[in-house]
Amino acid sequence: MPLRELDFAAALGRIRRLVWRTPALRVPAPAGDLTGEQRPATGSSAGSPAPAARPSDTWLKLESLQRTGSFKVRGAANRLLKLTAAERARGVVAVSSGNHGRAVAEVARVLGIPATICVPDWADPSKLRRIRDAGAELLRSGPSYDEADERAAGLAAAQGLTLVHPFDDPDVIEGQGTIGVELAEQLPELGEVIVPLSGGGLVAGVGLALKPRGVRIVAVSARRASVMLQSLEAGRPLRMPDEETIASALSGGIGDENRLTMRVVREVVDEHVIVGEDDIRAAVRSAFHDHRLVVEGGGAVGLAALASGYRPRGRVAVVVSGGNIDAPALAAMMG
Amino acid sequence: MPLRELDFAAALGRIRRLVWRTPALRVPAPAGDLTGEQRPATGSSAGSPAPAARPSDTWLKLESLQRTGSFKVRGAANRLLKLTAAERARGVVAVSSGNHGRAVAEVARVLGIPATICVPDWADPSKLRRIRDAGAELLRSGPSYDEADERAAGLAAAQGLTLVHPFDDPDVIEGQGTIGVELAEQLPELGEVIVPLSGGGLVAGVGLALKPRGVRIVAVSARRASVMLQSLEAGRPLRMPDEETIASALSGGIGDENRLTMRVVREVVDEHVIVGEDDIRAAVRSAFHDHRLVVEGGGAVGLAALASGYRPRGRVAVVVSGGNIDAPALAAMMG
Repeated sequence: MPLRELDFAAALGRIRRLVWRTPALRVPAPAGDLTGEQRPATGSSAGSPAPAARPSDTWLKLESLQRTGSFKVRGAANRLLKLTAAERARGVVAVSSGNHGRAVAEVARVLGIPATICVPDWADPSKLRRIRDAGAELLRSGPSYDEADERAAGLAAAQGLTLVHPFDDPDVIEGQGTIGVELAEQLPELGEVIVPLSGGGLVAGVGLALKPRGVRIVAVSARRASVMLQSLEAGRPLRMPDEETIASALSGGIGDENRLTMRVVREVVDEHVIVGEDDIRAAVRSAFHDHRLVVEGGGAVGLAALASGYRPRGRVAVVVSGGNIDAPALAAMMG
Repeated sequence: MPLRELDFAAALGRIRRLVWRTPALRVPAPAGDLTGEQRPATGSSAGSPAPAARPSDTWLKLESLQRTGSFKVRGAANRLLKLTAAERARGVVAVSSGNHGRAVAEVARVLGIPATICVPDWADPSKLRRIRDAGAELLRSGPSYDEADERAAGLAAAQGLTLVHPFDDPDVIEGQGTIGVELAEQLPELGEVIVPLSGGGLVAGVGLALKPRGVRIVAVSARRASVMLQSLEAGRPLRMPDEETIASALSGGIGDENRLTMRVVREVVDEHVIVGEDDIRAAVRSAFHDHRLVVEGGGAVGLAALASGYRPRGRVAVVVSGGNIDAPALAAMMG
């Protein structure tokens, strides 16, 4: 399917019974001052004209409140709902650091499709429990994401399972892009959207859905999970060792033979922002203390971009992409 | 002001710049099964006809995401915005177990009004920090809520401060009732609303706003903070010792000379539900695990009612009234 044929509105209609419409919550900006009243933006970068004094207009698109705790259920639902009866009967397999696997497992459970999820050894235990709870078969597949990826591909080939790719698939991209459809409905005159970047499915989907509407696309990478960004700079998909990061949901390779997302990300992204571990941790803390929101590290990189000084233009939506963190881990970050 | 003259829509217009419109989030019901897909309601009480098999239709009104972390800012804003210039200059005083005090302190800070907050010794330290952060004077006033209440009344009389009552005041009731206006806009055909009951300001406001629209009003009391319910049964305001409860936001007396809320609560509430500590704890846990929401014990009693077996009728909104709990306390509840 050529990507120009993606129909995000139709996809939203298709997946509506399996996913939730998540709230857009207005917050004061910048995120470093989430507790204060709304106030004019300050701190423009040197050389650029000072922004007009006006109330900030920053919104959080709360995919952390989404079913299964992350946006991943959108792409999983769109992909699985397009399977043929024969494909459904044979079953699906997916590789995941947790959120995609949980999403595939949950959608498969509801649709009665057998599911196998391959995970790297470092995947978060609380996410693995949820995958098992949904009745999927869970396979720990070695120390790296790429090894889990190879195992999933091997199972698909050997057993005739359908591989549900976490990002490099037009149906998955189309599913993630339904966030853009909701945002366009919820926030007229949206000027900019800030989206976490990992394998690029979310950025590709939201970007393809919103760029034609004139929305500026800003992608945020965690410094320790920046394979896509470095691959874009190198001009080819790189394979890099997984680094430990509190944004573990963003870890993992982009695939040696990336077909779609690298190209689309290059095409749709207007600006890249990189955030470090301390900024991410501060964003998770701020979400908890200032907004009573449970946000995992990978879901908080957009907030981290704001907290670290990135200044958006006009009405901006920050995609808070996931909230799957357990209470002890969250408490440990609060120090 | 006779209560029939309360104008909740006008109040919402008045306070709009100081409070946030909070999301209504659809969830599967009953709350004991928040992780599953939407499914027909079960467990109707004996003797009544079984409900028709239909998707459940349960919504959370997330005042936990409200500015200052609870609904209290609505009443505080409405009250303080109606003060005369002379009253503003003299300042305000309030008694609170935390949330009302934080709300008054924050609104007073924005409006430039001096504020003094009297709290019982058992008030949550993280709430007290927020009150100080807003620049209010904080007075720890003894082991009971009633003592803090008397100290606030004394200060008001001695220093000419305006007492901002946490519930027994028409402007405060009118402010809390703005939740009802938002719910009516967000959820057409709302059949029932489930509201935490403590001093009765929230129940009175939401009840007066929604009962004329034919919405059924259900009030939920924490067993260890049920002074209002017991007073209603006794036919007069009771004074009772504060019991320790994880729903501490609901603790405190209703005032020996309750003027308004006892009467209004009697008039508007269709059904009372009582929940215990274990149900509340389970609801806080479920909100975290199943919805990535930070909800304090007092804010979770409506969810606790669902989890403990209360079955609503038709489209129902559960007011999740506050989220001010710190991370260690939340983690301690997760065991």
